[in-house]
Amino acid sequence: MSGLLFVLSGPSGVGKSTLRKEVMKRCPALKYSISYTSRAPRRDEKEGVDYYFVDMETFEEMKEKGEFIEWAKVHGNYYGTPRRQVEEWLKEGFDVILEIDVQGAKQVKKNCPDGIFIFIAPPSLKTLEQRLRERNSDPEDEILLRMTNAHLEMQSIRDYNYLVVNDVLEEAVDKLRSIIIAERCRIR
Amino acid sequence: MSGLLFVLSGPSGVGKSTLRKEVMKRCPALKYSISYTSRAPRRDEKEGVDYYFVDMETFEEMKEKGEFIEWAKVHGNYYGTPRRQVEEWLKEGFDVILEIDVQGAKQVKKNCPDGIFIFIAPPSLKTLEQRLRERNSDPEDEILLRMTNAHLEMQSIRDYNYLVVNDVLEEAVDKLRSIIIAERCRIR
Repeated sequence: MSGLLFVLSGPSGVGKSTLRKEVMKRCPALKYSISYTSRAPRRDEKEGVDYYFVDMETFEEMKEKGEFIEWAKVHGNYYGTPRRQVEEWLKEGFDVILEIDVQGAKQVKKNCPDGIFIFIAPPSLKTLEQRLRERNSDPEDEILLRMTNAHLEMQSIRDYNYLVVNDVLEEAVDKLRSIIIAERCRIR
Repeated sequence: MSGLLFVLSGPSGVGKSTLRKEVMKRCPALKYSISYTSRAPRRDEKEGVDYYFVDMETFEEMKEKGEFIEWAKVHGNYYGTPRRQVEEWLKEGFDVILEIDVQGAKQVKKNCPDGIFIFIAPPSLKTLEQRLRERNSDPEDEILLRMTNAHLEMQSIRDYNYLVVNDVLEEAVDKLRSIIIAERCRIR
């Protein structure tokens, strides 16, 4: 019996990381695939915990070798999910959660149509902009780029199985946990 | 926007009533449609709370008039869900939960294919038999009839969307609640 693949996606700054970490505390049987990125670590990010940080050249080599289940260049930086670990976990029957951007989710949907795709949306685009500014780790032009992309990304909601609006964190975590538990009860 | 129809079903004695009552405490926005039955009330059952208790003749008249969204004769007694109230609630956008036997669920599936069908199963048929005997409200031949039906009913699981095994009550209630919350997040 194969495990379930949960794909958490949504605009940059919507709170995917926080949600994913909180839901993993409540659903311990979930395996998280750590992504590779070519961008520099943010203040609080740790190698091998939040990401594997590599340079552009290393990333491009891995990409050429087909080592990513999905990869994307977002705001000038590469992000990718290593293929082998995810496939092994699923085969062994473990449920896996990915936390990726909207471009990446589209690729996973093509490769793994049986995945469970969850779109995390902000209560409004205005709230999203405030959150990006409060995070205070990105320069102004990057914030504007992220906002433009968010507008476009909101239009792909219909390609997803579930929508979770991240307004009150505890409620959003509960919804995410419910989706995982419900999918485990689903008859396929 | 129309409400969601949750159909809770499974063999007699599996604990549908208890589960339904517990989940309604945790999901207050759920409307419960009280069924009609021609059987006599059990010790702890109340008119207009657990069922509307009517005689065989009244039930058959309502049935002829098409007043039931589903009805069934189970172990010699009629059970039926009144149509009008359920349809009104759904139209007004309320989510509705039905607690019905497996025959009844089949009829609802024909009439409302968009309903969400949840099968409640016992951990084993042996456990089910113990529970029926502990309930101590049914005569021996009725228990044997229920067990024979349970065997058959377990084979219709594949017609349902979800399977919840009622082993530890709290866990089963949590699963049921998760299914309801998840379905409210589902993109249709």
